Amino acid sequence: MTSTDNPVRLQAVSAPDQPDVTPALEQLYRGFEQELLVPLWTEIGDLMPAHPRSRAVPHCWRWEALRSLAARAGEIVPVGRGGERRAIALANPSLGGRSFATPTLWAAIQYLMPGEDAPEHRHTQHAFRFVVEGEGVWTVVGGDPVPMRRGDFLPQAGWNWHAHHNATSEPMAWIDGLDIPFQYVTEAQFFEFGRDAISDAERTTPDRSRSERLWGHPGLRPLSATPTMPGSPLLSYKWEFTDRALADQLAIEAEGFGGTVEPGHAAVRFANPATGADVLPTIRAEMHRVVRGAETAPVRETGSSVYQVFDGSGTVTVGDHSWTVTRGDLFVVPSWEAFSARSEAGATDSDAHSLDLFRFSDAPVFEALRLNRQEVTR
Amino acid sequence: MTSTDNPVRLQAVSAPDQPDVTPALEQLYRGFEQELLVPLWTEIGDLMPAHPRSRAVPHCWRWEALRSLAARAGEIVPVGRGGERRAIALANPSLGGRSFATPTLWAAIQYLMPGEDAPEHRHTQHAFRFVVEGEGVWTVVGGDPVPMRRGDFLPQAGWNWHAHHNATSEPMAWIDGLDIPFQYVTEAQFFEFGRDAISDAERTTPDRSRSERLWGHPGLRPLSATPTMPGSPLLSYKWEFTDRALADQLAIEAEGFGGTVEPGHAAVRFANPATGADVLPTIRAEMHRVVRGAETAPVRETGSSVYQVFDGSGTVTVGDHSWTVTRGDLFVVPSWEAFSARSEAGATDSDAHSLDLFRFSDAPVFEALRLNRQEVTR
Amino acid sequence: MTSTDNPVRLQAVSAPDQPDVTPALEQLYRGFEQELLVPLWTEIGDLMPAHPRSRAVPHCWRWEALRSLAARAGEIVPVGRGGERRAIALANPSLGGRSFATPTLWAAIQYLMPGEDAPEHRHTQHAFRFVVEGEGVWTVVGGDPVPMRRGDFLPQAGWNWHAHHNATSEPMAWIDGLDIPFQYVTEAQFFEFGRDAISDAERTTPDRSRSERLWGHPGLRPLSATPTMPGSPLLSYKWEFTDRALADQLAIEAEGFGGTVEPGHAAVRFANPATGADVLPTIRAEMHRVVRGAETAPVRETGSSVYQVFDGSGTVTVGDHSWTVTRGDLFVVPSWEAFSARSEAGATDSDAHSLDLFRFSDAPVFEALRLNRQEVTR
Amino acid sequence: MTSTDNPVRLQAVSAPDQPDVTPALEQLYRGFEQELLVPLWTEIGDLMPAHPRSRAVPHCWRWEALRSLAARAGEIVPVGRGGERRAIALANPSLGGRSFATPTLWAAIQYLMPGEDAPEHRHTQHAFRFVVEGEGVWTVVGGDPVPMRRGDFLPQAGWNWHAHHNATSEPMAWIDGLDIPFQYVTEAQFFEFGRDAISDAERTTPDRSRSERLWGHPGLRPLSATPTMPGSPLLSYKWEFTDRALADQLAIEAEGFGGTVEPGHAAVRFANPATGADVLPTIRAEMHRVVRGAETAPVRETGSSVYQVFDGSGTVTVGDHSWTVTRGDLFVVPSWEAFSARSEAGATDSDAHSLDLFRFSDAPVFEALRLNRQEVTR
Repeated sequence: MTSTDNPVRLQAVSAPDQPDVTPALEQLYRGFEQELLVPLWTEIGDLMPAHPRSRAVPHCWRWEALRSLAARAGEIVPVGRGGERRAIALANPSLGGRSFATPTLWAAIQYLMPGEDAPEHRHTQHAFRFVVEGEGVWTVVGGDPVPMRRGDFLPQAGWNWHAHHNATSEPMAWIDGLDIPFQYVTEAQFFEFGRDAISDAERTTPDRSRSERLWGHPGLRPLSATPTMPGSPLLSYKWEFTDRALADQLAIEAEGFGGTVEPGHAAVRFANPATGADVLPTIRAEMHRVVRGAETAPVRETGSSVYQVFDGSGTVTVGDHSWTVTRGDLFVVPSWEAFSARSEAGATDSDAHSLDLFRFSDAPVFEALRLNRQEVTR
Repeated sequence: MTSTDNPVRLQAVSAPDQPDVTPALEQLYRGFEQELLVPLWTEIGDLMPAHPRSRAVPHCWRWEALRSLAARAGEIVPVGRGGERRAIALANPSLGGRSFATPTLWAAIQYLMPGEDAPEHRHTQHAFRFVVEGEGVWTVVGGDPVPMRRGDFLPQAGWNWHAHHNATSEPMAWIDGLDIPFQYVTEAQFFEFGRDAISDAERTTPDRSRSERLWGHPGLRPLSATPTMPGSPLLSYKWEFTDRALADQLAIEAEGFGGTVEPGHAAVRFANPATGADVLPTIRAEMHRVVRGAETAPVRETGSSVYQVFDGSGTVTVGDHSWTVTRGDLFVVPSWEAFSARSEAGATDSDAHSLDLFRFSDAPVFEALRLNRQEVTR
Repeated sequence: MTSTDNPVRLQAVSAPDQPDVTPALEQLYRGFEQELLVPLWTEIGDLMPAHPRSRAVPHCWRWEALRSLAARAGEIVPVGRGGERRAIALANPSLGGRSFATPTLWAAIQYLMPGEDAPEHRHTQHAFRFVVEGEGVWTVVGGDPVPMRRGDFLPQAGWNWHAHHNATSEPMAWIDGLDIPFQYVTEAQFFEFGRDAISDAERTTPDRSRSERLWGHPGLRPLSATPTMPGSPLLSYKWEFTDRALADQLAIEAEGFGGTVEPGHAAVRFANPATGADVLPTIRAEMHRVVRGAETAPVRETGSSVYQVFDGSGTVTVGDHSWTVTRGDLFVVPSWEAFSARSEAGATDSDAHSLDLFRFSDAPVFEALRLNRQEVTR
Repeated sequence: MTSTDNPVRLQAVSAPDQPDVTPALEQLYRGFEQELLVPLWTEIGDLMPAHPRSRAVPHCWRWEALRSLAARAGEIVPVGRGGERRAIALANPSLGGRSFATPTLWAAIQYLMPGEDAPEHRHTQHAFRFVVEGEGVWTVVGGDPVPMRRGDFLPQAGWNWHAHHNATSEPMAWIDGLDIPFQYVTEAQFFEFGRDAISDAERTTPDRSRSERLWGHPGLRPLSATPTMPGSPLLSYKWEFTDRALADQLAIEAEGFGGTVEPGHAAVRFANPATGADVLPTIRAEMHRVVRGAETAPVRETGSSVYQVFDGSGTVTVGDHSWTVTRGDLFVVPSWEAFSARSEAGATDSDAHSLDLFRFSDAPVFEALRLNRQEVTR
C-alpha cells in the first residue's frame, strides 16, 4: 500500500472540542494518515454517542407490493444451486443499499412455485420462517419434513441441513428471518451445499413433524433426546397454540387476574422447550396481540426489531414515523427508537379483529453480552 | 452431659484391619468416648463403602390395601388444622418405622371426602400430586384452583400457599410426593399455617387453571410473567398431553426413526417450561410406557425412586426382588439397586394395554451436586 | 417380613389435633402397621416444623484433649490399608454416637507419625484438610505433592486419588473435613483402594504443588488446563495469601472504604479459581478475622457449620450455648442456631491478636437446591 | 425518499448461477429497487461464504512510529472535555479509513503528559489498558486509584466512571483496547460525562488499588462484596503475577508434567475472579510466552485478535503475511486467518529472551453466541 491509496483521510477542523488548526497539526494528521492511525478526538461523537443513534431508519414495506414482486420473480427466476433460494430481502434505506433490514437482521419474502424444490444446504446463520398466508410447503430439516401453514413459526438453528419443497399446485410465500448482517459483521459464517435432491421419504407431507411429536407437548421432554446443537429442537410452533395462548391471556385479564403485558396487550415468546431460553442464540421471536382500541406503551430498547402484521389493522409508531398497517406489512424498529402500536379497524377487517404482530429481534445477543437496556418513554 | 450418658460407645474388636486389642487401646477408646470422638478405622466400612448400600430395601405396596385403609380413615379421621392432611405415608421396612419411602423421598395416599377441605398452609418442602384414579378435587395454589383428574401430575414448589377442596359427591384419592426426608435430614424446613378457609372465588372449578392457561402451551412463554420462585410455574401436566407424547414416541419408533429410550419403551420427563429443568429443585418426575411384551434394560443409579403403576400390568424387578404389579401399586428402588420392568397381560387388562409407570426420584439433588452415576447392568 | 417384626408402631393418643381414640381408630392403626404405613397427622409436627429444629446440638471440643488423644493413637494404632487413616472424628452428642459433627458434616483430627504414609485411595466424598499447627506432611493428589503448613487450606474434590506422607522427624496433626454424613444419607458413595505405595517421584517435598503453580496466580488461568472434575483445581490455599487478604480488608476499612463484612470483621471465602464458586460442590470454607474487642452480629442460617479457632481467643455463642475458646478448639453450629463471636484477650495471647476463625459448612448444598435462608437476629 | 435517491442498485449479470438477463428481469429489478428490496441470489456469495472472509486485512503497526506520533500529539493537542482522551487508534487498511483495528475491536495508543488529567466519563463500551512501557499514571475507577506500570493489564467494564492522571514528571504511553466497533455495529452505546476534576483523595498514588486488595488474592473472595456489574471486579492484573505464572508453566513443562499449551509456549488468560470467565463480556485478554527457538502451531479461529509484542523478538505469520516484530509492535489477526509466532533473537535482545505476546480478542462474543470455531491448520 502506498500513501497515495491510503484509506485514512483526516481533516483538521475548527471546533470547540478540536485542537487549533495549525501547520503542526496538519503535519501531525499527515503522519497519522501515513501510519494508518485515526485520533479519537475527531471521531468520538460518532463512535461514542450519548445513546444509540442508529444508522438504520424506520421503514415500512407493504405486503401487497412484496408478494406481487415475489410472484413475478416466481415466473422468471428459477430456484437452484448457487442462488439457492428465491428470497427477496428488505434493504433498509440508510444502510447503503445492502440487503439488511437492520444492522443485525435480515428479512425476506421467499416464494416457491408448485412442485418446486429449494436445494439442501446448511449455514451457521440462524434462521426462521414465518407464514403470513398460504400453505403447502414442507421444510425438510435434517430429514424431518415440517409443514408450513398460516401462523406457523419455524425456527432453524445454524448448521442444520435444510431444503424446502412445495407439494401443492399453488405457489406459496412466507418470510425468512436470519442473522445474516450480524454474522457478516462478526465474520462467523460457514456454508455448505447439501444433496442436490431430497429423498422420496423426505418428500412426504405429514401433518406434524417428528420434532413436534417429540418436543411439542407442553412441559414434557422426551428422555430419548438431549439437544447438543444450539437452538430449539422444536422445529415448528403451530398457530393453533400461539393463538390459544394469546386468547388465554386476554381471558385471564378479563377475569381480573392480569396475565397480559399491559391492558389489552397479550404476548408470547417462542422458547426453546429444552432450556426455556430464546429459540435461537441470536434471534428472539414473539407474537403480540393488541385488542381493538388498545394502544401499547411506547418502549425503546437497545437492539433492533422487524415486525410483520399477522392480522388486523392499526397504526404503528416508530420514533417520529407512523404508518397505518394491515396484514402482511413489514416494518423495522431501529435501536433505541420508541415503538408503540394502536389497534384500529381497517378497510377490510371487522371490529372484532385484534391487531396481531409478529416480531423478531436481536435481543438474545444484547442479553448474552449484558448490553440490553429498556425504557418506557411515556 | 455426664460421662455416664455419653452416647459414644466404642468396642475394640480383633479384626485384620483393626488395631490389636490391648489395655492401652481400651484406655484410648475410653478417652475417645469421654471426649465424644469416634475413630474412622472402626467405621470406615459402613461410612465409605465401595458403592452405595442403601439402608432402604425394595418394597411393594398394593393399591387395593392402601385405598381401602384410606377410605376407612375417611370415615373416622377428620381433616383439619393441626393434622392438616389425611395423608398416609409409605414406611420403608428398614428405615426404623419412620414414614420415609426412601432415605430422601416421602410418598403417601391422600384422601378427601365429598365436600371436604384440606386447610391452607405452606412449607419449604417441595411437593407434587399424581392422580391414579378419580377426579373432583381442586388444589388451590396461590389462589389459583387447579383441577385433579386421572393421569394429571401437579407439581408444587416449596413455599406456595395451597389448600384442597373436594367439589363433588364422591371421595377422591391420589398420591402426594414430597422431599420431606431429605429436608428432615438437611434441616431446611419452614412451615406456616394459612387462612382457615379459602374464598368463594377460589372454590370455583375451572377446567384449566390460570397457570395452565399462561404456561401450558408448547414452547410458548408469556411475556407478562417471569418466575422468581424455584420450581415450575406450570401447576398441572394434564394426562391428555402426557399420553399423546408417549404415543407419539412409539409411533416415531414404528416409522423407524427412534424416538424411544429403547425398543418398546417411551418416556417423558415433566419439565419446568421456563427453564427446561426438573419441575422441582429436589424431585424429578417422569412417565414411562412399556409396550406389551417389552422389557426395559436393568439400570442402576445413585439416588432413589418411587414408582406407581398408572396402567397395565407387568413384572418389575428391583435388585433381588420381583413383583407382579397392576394399576395403583407402588414400589421403591433404593440407591444403586438395578431396576427393570416387563410389560405382561394381567388378570384384568387386555393385550392392547401397555404398562404405564409413573416415577419420581431425587435425581435433581444428585445432578446439582454432581453425585449422579448410572450404569446399565446388562 | 411377618407382622411380628413389622417396624411400624403407631400409638393412638388423645390430643387436640389428633383423632379421637376409639376402637375403630385402633383397628385402623393396626391396619397401617400391617401395611407399613404411617399417617402424616401423627408425625407432622416433627417432620414439618415451623422452622428447622436440629437433631444436632451445639458442642465444643478442646484442641488440647484432641491432640493428646491423637498423639496417644499415634503410638498404639498403626496406619494402613483397611483403616486407611488415623483420623478421629467429632461425634455430636445428640446424633446417636455416630461420628457426625452435624447431620451433614464430618470433622476429624488426623495424625501422622514421622516417616509414616497414609495409603492411596479415592472416594466420592468431598474432603479438605486445614492445618492449625505444625508442618512436614505432603498430600499427594493425583501424583502432585502438596505441602501442608499452619494456616494452609487444602480442598480435595471427590474421586481424586490421594495419599499422605510425613517427610519429617516430627508427628503432625491437622483436621479433615468431609461430607461423609451427607453422602451417607443420600447414599451416593463410591470408594476405591489405590496403590499400596506412592512412587519416589511423588515422595518429593516441593514448596509449591504443580496445582498452585498452574492455578495459584490471582485472576489468571492457564490456557493448558480446563477442569473437568467438580471442585477446585487449586489444591492449596496458602496461609500467607489468606492472612494478607484479611489484613487488606481491615486496612481498607480503616481508610473509610468498607471492605469488611461488618466493623472489625474481615472474611474471605475459599473459591474455585476456574468458576468463582465454592471449592467443593457440597462444602463451603471461609476464614474470618474478628479484631480484638469486636463482636459479630448474631446470624442464623439453614444448614450447619463447623468452626475451628485458628488464632487468638474469644467467646463464641451458639444458640443458648457460650464458650471461651482458644487456638485449635472446634465447635459446631447446628441449622438455624444463631452464631456470634467476640474477640477477647485470652490467657496466652497478647492484646494485639485478632480472633481468627476457620469455618466450613454445607451451604453449597442449600444454595444449589435453593433451600438457603439467613437471618440476622439482632 | 424519492426513487431518484433510492439507495438500492441492482445490476442483472450473466453468470451460471444468475437468472437470464432479459427485459423482464430488468423490469423486475427496477421493481425491487423501487420497493427497497434486494434478491438473495445476487448477494449470497458475499453474505454467506463457505467460511469467513474478513473485510479486514492483516496489518502491522510499529511501536516506534506510534509513540513518536503520540509524543508529537502530546505537544500540540490538549486533553480535555469533548475530545476526552489523547488516544490515537489503529485503522485497518481495508475498513474504509475508520478507526477500527478489526471489525469488532478498537486499539489505540494513549498518551498523557506530566501532570495532565484525562477527564472523568463513563460509557457502555468495555475497555482495558495495557502498559508496554513506562509508569506514573493512575486510572481512577469509581473513586479507586489504580497504578499503571509496565506489564500491568487493567480491565474496565462498561459503565464505570473513570479518569486518568499523570502523577509524575514524565509523559506516559499505553494502549487502550475497546469493543467500540462491535457496539457501533450493534448500536448499544451510551456515554456520560463525569465530574470535570477528580478529588484530591482520588489523586493519591497508592501502590495497590482497593480492588486489588479486595480481589487480588489467589482463589480468595471477599465476603463483603458481590459484583453486580458485568466484568471483573479486579481492576489490575500486575505484571509480577503474570510473569510468574508463565515462568511456572515453563518450569512444570521442564519437569515433564506439561503445563504449557504446546512445547515452549506458555499462556494465561486474564479471568474474572468472581466467575472464572473472561474479564469483560466482549473482550478476552491473554499473555503468551514463546521461548527462544520455539514456534506455535498455526491456528485459525472465528473472530479477530489484536496482538502487541510485550517483550522479545520474533516472526509472526498471519495468513499470507509475515513480519519480524519487536517490543511494542502491534498487529491484527482477522477472522479465520491462521496465526503462528516464532521466537527469534532480534537486534537488541539477548538469547535468553522469550517472545512475550499480549493478545486481546472478541472471543467471548463468539462463545456466548456459540459461533466459535477453531482449527489447527498444520
